[in-house]
Amino acid sequence: MAIVDQALPHIAKISPYIPGKPVSELQRELGLSRVTKLASNENPLGVSAKVEQAAKLALKTLGRYPDGNAFYLRAAIAEFTCRTMPEVMVGNGSNELLEFVGRVFAGPGDEVIFSQYAFAVYAITAQIIGATPIQVTAKAYGHDLDAMAAAITSKTKLIYLANPNNPTGSFFSADALTAFMQKVPANVVVVYDEAYLEYVERDDAPSGLALLDQYPNVIVTRTFSKAYGLAALRVGYLLAHPDIVNLLNRIRAPFNVNELSQVCAVAALADQDFVAASVALNKQERSKVITALTHMGYTPLPSEGNFVCVNMGPEAASINQQLLQLGVIVRPVANYGMADFLRISIGTEAENQHLITALAQVK
Amino acid sequence: MAIVDQALPHIAKISPYIPGKPVSELQRELGLSRVTKLASNENPLGVSAKVEQAAKLALKTLGRYPDGNAFYLRAAIAEFTCRTMPEVMVGNGSNELLEFVGRVFAGPGDEVIFSQYAFAVYAITAQIIGATPIQVTAKAYGHDLDAMAAAITSKTKLIYLANPNNPTGSFFSADALTAFMQKVPANVVVVYDEAYLEYVERDDAPSGLALLDQYPNVIVTRTFSKAYGLAALRVGYLLAHPDIVNLLNRIRAPFNVNELSQVCAVAALADQDFVAASVALNKQERSKVITALTHMGYTPLPSEGNFVCVNMGPEAASINQQLLQLGVIVRPVANYGMADFLRISIGTEAENQHLITALAQVK
Repeated sequence: MAIVDQALPHIAKISPYIPGKPVSELQRELGLSRVTKLASNENPLGVSAKVEQAAKLALKTLGRYPDGNAFYLRAAIAEFTCRTMPEVMVGNGSNELLEFVGRVFAGPGDEVIFSQYAFAVYAITAQIIGATPIQVTAKAYGHDLDAMAAAITSKTKLIYLANPNNPTGSFFSADALTAFMQKVPANVVVVYDEAYLEYVERDDAPSGLALLDQYPNVIVTRTFSKAYGLAALRVGYLLAHPDIVNLLNRIRAPFNVNELSQVCAVAALADQDFVAASVALNKQERSKVITALTHMGYTPLPSEGNFVCVNMGPEAASINQQLLQLGVIVRPVANYGMADFLRISIGTEAENQHLITALAQVK
Repeated sequence: MAIVDQALPHIAKISPYIPGKPVSELQRELGLSRVTKLASNENPLGVSAKVEQAAKLALKTLGRYPDGNAFYLRAAIAEFTCRTMPEVMVGNGSNELLEFVGRVFAGPGDEVIFSQYAFAVYAITAQIIGATPIQVTAKAYGHDLDAMAAAITSKTKLIYLANPNNPTGSFFSADALTAFMQKVPANVVVVYDEAYLEYVERDDAPSGLALLDQYPNVIVTRTFSKAYGLAALRVGYLLAHPDIVNLLNRIRAPFNVNELSQVCAVAALADQDFVAASVALNKQERSKVITALTHMGYTPLPSEGNFVCVNMGPEAASINQQLLQLGVIVRPVANYGMADFLRISIGTEAENQHLITALAQVK
């Protein structure tokens, strides 16, 4: 009997992971000298100089284990969010935290609700834990909160909301969220994922923090990978009732966030000027990119993130291939059921110009 | 209904995590100027200078996501171990990999076998996945492989072996392992944990790698946290049949090992001179520490690791407190059911001298 047949049934059903090639490999293969990567919603300003300084100091002590309690980072997050330390948990990216919630609250037979076109990790988590994924049809490529509320059954254990949502950039208002929460039973956990919070420009944005006092079943997740520029280092955090954090901590490995990441996240949180500059650049450039794409006859979805998801019609896959040959890497989203779309991160002015120039050459 | 009551039953049964204080906090509280930490089996030489150089270069690109496939690190590990890339998987410390195996192969109703006094993560993993932990009574503080083989039932899905074992330092020979493997059914997964491999001095040491060709149910785990000096960065790897790696990858988050850790691990693997120096220092100092402890009337267990586990009798807890006051941090192992023991990592000559001097002052 093959040993792989011994795996738990729901694990064997998960689609196998298909490894990609590093960008540097692709660059070499295509013989490209200049590559613009607008594929992963990274911060085009890179990392704050203050973070780099803090990291350099920490390099001397790489031989020592991290602080398993992430004391200083959690203290800094608590201060920044005006919450208490027992409400704060840090993860190896918010990805890990999104998974922890699934693993603690749902299993085979339970239902996990998320929106069509929502961040892929929600559906993957449902698969990993063997729960039943309930994907609710989107409205205008965004969360249909009424339909999501209507999808709640006695088996529902967990709902994931992304605001703004990746990969679509869609957004819902504070009023819409309030109306939704009133329909959610108190025994259903709601994860409110604010990974792109910093980029939102609208006045009617909900505050995840404001939900915490009213709803002990709400968990807010955030990341240092976007506006804070620490994608390489994998740091996310969540805010929730201390009893929930206590539960989630039971499956957290003691050193889940490495020491250098802790040090850099503390420095990144302290450098709000860098965050403000990143957000300002995004505001200015997102608007220019959307205008240029529209003039070229494409249809970008409205976006509150650091990216735009663009309807390019049936030629999207071909356009993506041609852009690659021209040294511009964007993200196809066919795996989200959006084969006509490409997701394009907002880069620096020069990077965005490279994209626009390349798009003009596409046949 | 409180939201925490919604957690899966086996999660709620896990002992809550009790956060510790950072060393720097302790130092401040006790008003200590000099602190020697011999508590976490870290490399007293710290980190290789070549790793530090590689890390500095990588600091410029912290804004970019890691290579989710860990291409260069897995290639380096494959070359170093003379295995193929599809047999290699990397983790956020070997801790994560030990957990992945549990989560893929065992669940409620299944039995997971490990030795009394074995590395705590095995028992914790059994708890996290809701499996039945089968702790087999140790022999002379080491694995009783005959008793472990006898404990296998039709419910056994997974066996964890640590060689050498932490926290005891115990060791079993290649012949003993071969005899054990002959008794293990082909449908039971055996994890052979070699975290302390580099420190073993005996000629009759088993090779985990040699098992791989013969036993497709064997998974070998290793770490960069000990002899390679990267404890802060959390990198471990496993070697197994490609089909097993493919299964385990299904629950791996795409960016589980951060970019800086990947870069540093590649540099660390290339600097075998540093590893050799670390091992040589350990050999020399371990022997001196054992001799000194024995002369003081204590009973160190034989150790093949970079630490010694010392029987200090009923005064162990008091000795630990007095050592703390004198600025020496060692590890109590009462949580392993070894209240009379302290585990002491082997440090530099100066650090070990601090320990011996402090011990001489203990009442």
